[in-house]
Amino acid sequence: MENMTDKLLKKIDETRCPCVVGLDPRIEQIPSFLKEHKKHDPNQKRAVAEIFLEFNQLIIDQIKDVVPAVKPQIAFYEQYGHYGLKAFEDTVKYAQENGLIVIGDAKRNDIGSTAQGYAKAFLGKVKGANDQEIKGIDVDYLTVTPYLGSDGVKPFIDVCKQYHKGIFCLVKTSNPSSGELQDKNIEKENKTIYELVAEYVAQSGSDLIGVKGYSSIGAVVGATYPEQAKKLRKLMPKTMFLVPGYGAQGGGAADVVPCFNEDGYGAIVNSSRGIIFAYKQDKYKNTFKENHFHFAARQAAVEMQKDIYEALKNAGKLPKGW
Amino acid sequence: MENMTDKLLKKIDETRCPCVVGLDPRIEQIPSFLKEHKKHDPNQKRAVAEIFLEFNQLIIDQIKDVVPAVKPQIAFYEQYGHYGLKAFEDTVKYAQENGLIVIGDAKRNDIGSTAQGYAKAFLGKVKGANDQEIKGIDVDYLTVTPYLGSDGVKPFIDVCKQYHKGIFCLVKTSNPSSGELQDKNIEKENKTIYELVAEYVAQSGSDLIGVKGYSSIGAVVGATYPEQAKKLRKLMPKTMFLVPGYGAQGGGAADVVPCFNEDGYGAIVNSSRGIIFAYKQDKYKNTFKENHFHFAARQAAVEMQKDIYEALKNAGKLPKGW
Repeated sequence: MENMTDKLLKKIDETRCPCVVGLDPRIEQIPSFLKEHKKHDPNQKRAVAEIFLEFNQLIIDQIKDVVPAVKPQIAFYEQYGHYGLKAFEDTVKYAQENGLIVIGDAKRNDIGSTAQGYAKAFLGKVKGANDQEIKGIDVDYLTVTPYLGSDGVKPFIDVCKQYHKGIFCLVKTSNPSSGELQDKNIEKENKTIYELVAEYVAQSGSDLIGVKGYSSIGAVVGATYPEQAKKLRKLMPKTMFLVPGYGAQGGGAADVVPCFNEDGYGAIVNSSRGIIFAYKQDKYKNTFKENHFHFAARQAAVEMQKDIYEALKNAGKLPKGW
Repeated sequence: MENMTDKLLKKIDETRCPCVVGLDPRIEQIPSFLKEHKKHDPNQKRAVAEIFLEFNQLIIDQIKDVVPAVKPQIAFYEQYGHYGLKAFEDTVKYAQENGLIVIGDAKRNDIGSTAQGYAKAFLGKVKGANDQEIKGIDVDYLTVTPYLGSDGVKPFIDVCKQYHKGIFCLVKTSNPSSGELQDKNIEKENKTIYELVAEYVAQSGSDLIGVKGYSSIGAVVGATYPEQAKKLRKLMPKTMFLVPGYGAQGGGAADVVPCFNEDGYGAIVNSSRGIIFAYKQDKYKNTFKENHFHFAARQAAVEMQKDIYEALKNAGKLPKGW
């Protein structure tokens, strides 16, 4: 049956771009012309939330035909409380209306009925006071953290099954200290913690494989550890990787290649600051004025597409027909 | 210097109750009389959020002199989107105005600037469009998940320092599968993953010790694994434990005793469903009518206090002066 990852792969084929733009707005870095008229708003939380939405919409308008997906990181929205969450919800909706797949980056985690609560909140339906069901925040994919063990992840998988959604479970993260726990070798098992999680992700996603051969249960695998990505690619052949760490965090196009299968699929590479705040980079700031920040974002997305495309080509991993 | 845990311990002394009530509202279990008039509201997300707030306020009014703290679990609120988050924020505020310490149970986790984003969102201040600082959701403590390694936890600790707040970092959780990752023995290190996290928590909290001898950097240690709690108590002598798993999850008063130090402090035991939905239990439903659910909650809280008090007394761990 067609799953969420089939939809994502279709968009990737259309754009020839296995990339996702992280929508992580930071008020300090947003162009002044979007902020100026809100400086005297007595409700600054609402003001910032409205600015975030406008900023995101302008970006989405420019990148919607370049990339297949966006990944709003909810932390930046939660800073502005329920006003911020409204901007997050409205961003999700706007991106979906514009044909983009939305990965909600929330790294939720809990146990049993609470994990189920999060899963319904982001991917499923919840009950109203009248006992009828209402859609939750309704992202297409959600990121999930596995520290609590399988009964902290299974409720998310169950909701994916029911509502044809997807998750990306943290396996190996891109940050410098990710190895402190994830890389620990398990005594007598000849594997690390991240390999153990990888096995669980591959196994639990095995009955949710789509028509194109990939599961809707994906994995987060950082671009900053290409050697480990290589191992993980083998451990999880049918798992889609969400790959952070490209660009601002130091990973290059060559580093992300091991995250792809030989068929040229299997990974989607994220860039956040490198795209949405491209207008601040030396590379773009002479070409694009501040009030053309969204055109700079488009240009940066186009260049990222080219960068990844070339790296795949050089590695002999370009998908058929590209 | 006085820290957040000093405030919590003062409240614990006042109430002689090292317990926290989990405010985890579920629409299906909320008494009908609170729902009836909202059944025809065209905006059911807002309707449920308003019901949650009213439900919580009635509970808080009844338990505020019985327990020192409440722990709203944000998953249940996020189910109703930004309306739900508003109910969460209003619950936090109402509890604080009524003298309760608030532990935001959100199990947030991410890296670098994103982790800092979450930390500011819940514990610190954020920037407005006018560059001025505004308080975030402003809970007193936040739960944090350590899977990403120390650079996923440190931003929370830094914000705790700056704003005199606290966190509880997941160390050993109460769920059946918690051992799948947390209990794995690390090769050649003669310790488990949860012990490694415990050492990090103890070490990183060591410069945030309050006047009563406890750090504002706490740990989540489940009541369902008393043998492991015993080990953890020794590994983290100055760490406050937040103890889930009592009551509905199967942990008894005797099981939580190992979480306490010999001085009778060092732990705060959570019960959620067991208190807030006490009116549905056989034990209470003949005494309390549905529209007296909040009196049932009070009664259940009083009995929990007694249960833990007696267990501490029997173990010779009652704090001086109680």
